[in-house]
Amino acid sequence: MKTEQIIARIRKLGEEIQAEVDANRSPDIVMPAKGLSNVNFDEKKMLLTLGDKKMKRNFLNIAHARKFMQTLMIANLCRKLVESDKHASIREVYYQLKHTIHRTKENTFEGQEDSDPVIEDLERTLDILREQMNLTADRKGYLYGNIKILDAGDTINCSRLGRGGYGIPSTVEELEFAEVKADFALVIETAAMYERLVEEKFAKKNNAILVATQGQAARGVRRLIHRISNEAKLPVIVFSDGDPYGYYIYSVIKMGSINLAYLSSSLGTPKCKFIGMTMTDIERYGLEKVTEKLKDLDVKRIKEEMNYAWFKDKRWQLELKKMLKGGVRIEQQALANKSLEFVAKKYLPDKISREDFLP
Amino acid sequence: MKTEQIIARIRKLGEEIQAEVDANRSPDIVMPAKGLSNVNFDEKKMLLTLGDKKMKRNFLNIAHARKFMQTLMIANLCRKLVESDKHASIREVYYQLKHTIHRTKENTFEGQEDSDPVIEDLERTLDILREQMNLTADRKGYLYGNIKILDAGDTINCSRLGRGGYGIPSTVEELEFAEVKADFALVIETAAMYERLVEEKFAKKNNAILVATQGQAARGVRRLIHRISNEAKLPVIVFSDGDPYGYYIYSVIKMGSINLAYLSSSLGTPKCKFIGMTMTDIERYGLEKVTEKLKDLDVKRIKEEMNYAWFKDKRWQLELKKMLKGGVRIEQQALANKSLEFVAKKYLPDKISREDFLP
Repeated sequence: MKTEQIIARIRKLGEEIQAEVDANRSPDIVMPAKGLSNVNFDEKKMLLTLGDKKMKRNFLNIAHARKFMQTLMIANLCRKLVESDKHASIREVYYQLKHTIHRTKENTFEGQEDSDPVIEDLERTLDILREQMNLTADRKGYLYGNIKILDAGDTINCSRLGRGGYGIPSTVEELEFAEVKADFALVIETAAMYERLVEEKFAKKNNAILVATQGQAARGVRRLIHRISNEAKLPVIVFSDGDPYGYYIYSVIKMGSINLAYLSSSLGTPKCKFIGMTMTDIERYGLEKVTEKLKDLDVKRIKEEMNYAWFKDKRWQLELKKMLKGGVRIEQQALANKSLEFVAKKYLPDKISREDFLP
Repeated sequence: MKTEQIIARIRKLGEEIQAEVDANRSPDIVMPAKGLSNVNFDEKKMLLTLGDKKMKRNFLNIAHARKFMQTLMIANLCRKLVESDKHASIREVYYQLKHTIHRTKENTFEGQEDSDPVIEDLERTLDILREQMNLTADRKGYLYGNIKILDAGDTINCSRLGRGGYGIPSTVEELEFAEVKADFALVIETAAMYERLVEEKFAKKNNAILVATQGQAARGVRRLIHRISNEAKLPVIVFSDGDPYGYYIYSVIKMGSINLAYLSSSLGTPKCKFIGMTMTDIERYGLEKVTEKLKDLDVKRIKEEMNYAWFKDKRWQLELKKMLKGGVRIEQQALANKSLEFVAKKYLPDKISREDFLP
């Protein structure tokens, strides 16, 4: 979406409210409702999507008035940011807008817990990502491989960054892919495994892009993976620990999350596939000695995941059942028990050549 | 230290033990004792240092035998790593070495909580960093600015990496500074503030290197800051939140930590200075409205810090007292209340030109 379109959409919200006020009516803001009851799973698209339910925020409703004001304050700040080509972190947004309202003792915002949900409301109202409104948040994640990225006037060859790799910014809207020569992208849960694969020259030997998420993927990383799949048209393979947390990381990358279901079409990567770790890997590669016992919380999460519509595929059900029955989980780095090179020279190439993926 | 020296030091440990065994004596490993009772604060060097107390690990002492074996297993793995120019994460070390001892039901290691302390023991025994023995750990942190880094055959111009910056690896031993044109380094607690300063072109306008620690600095980041100060001879300025946690981050960067006091001479940067946030900043820049109330834990930590030898300087005591008295803390990002540009155009240049630093 172009800058002008984003500005126009924010302006339109303001103009509609202005028109209501001019007509002596109490203005309201209509937005898609949030919460589980308005989230659907689109099996065809393999994405969590928002339903049709709406909610209204009315200026003259005493329960809504404060949030109404906050919504407009944030919308106004975002318009200014986009117009001036500046970014602000969601923490700065809170600090920028916090003040005591003239002639009252009332603060506009008491804390970031006031402003963050309003930013999400605005995303749903306008159907624009906060990143597109130039809001940033804490970043994590690294990228390495045969891709040239254009960012802020610099062309960055991500295969020539030593072992460090490119630090993925919190918003990747402005990035452009100048040249993509890699054949696929491998998304990795831990930075330590990413460093292992860089050291083993996995990226070079297999012509792959490596992306480290460092646990649950940040929004900037999810957006970048989405763009690697949709714009650069590369296959995306996800490599996480073999435990309910790792599988959840995968599902969020693929389908989106329940809380932010309205973002799935921008952040989700439904075409991505899962390479491991799986419970089947434990038997196939003889890793029984390096599993870890499940904790109570793991068991609870496995049972939850078995009920998710997007884990209903029988191959996932089999894995989750095996995990419950065996009572163990397995980490990516447990592959080091075979040898340090095993993951790069045997495990990954083996599974990729057999296309041994979960959907 | 050169590769050969590291290998020689590990080999010597093994040879000494071998000689004892050959002489029918029970071998032992002597290492500096750990814990607070063996940590001193060297006021002249401004570093936490290890005392002269020693501890012994004896093979035929039933309470020591297991750890003795573990120490040798890890030393042996490290020697192999350094000899073959490979790295392993400390999690991989655990998985590599975990196995059931032949004809017993005894495991070499039960978990990483067994192997991590032994790695630290080995560092103290040999007076070698784990990074120098090619062990890695989880990474975080980014670098941006006018410095060229040589890493794994690539020359990386860290001022031409868009807004992303260079992802600092978990070990920086192999990095070389190919060219340093910056005038000083600014070390920043939050990645969001780092992104703000990149966007405001603070690095370019002030010819500075920016380093984001993302909270408590990882060992790789501390080592890099140490090298920027000691090898590249740049002044280092630390910019954290104005709270006991931010001040602790500063003190670890400067003086080292109590737990890892034996590392201070390699990881500490005693020459670095502290720019803010301070309690004095709140008055000077009129930030009273954007402070946050102290929590009980904050109060407890402030009182602890007031007793640390390295915060005995009267300027630090004044700041800590003001914080207690005012009952508030202030974040870096609260400066956004003035304007988004304020930190880059006014606050930092102002304080730097006045040399308004804490020691």
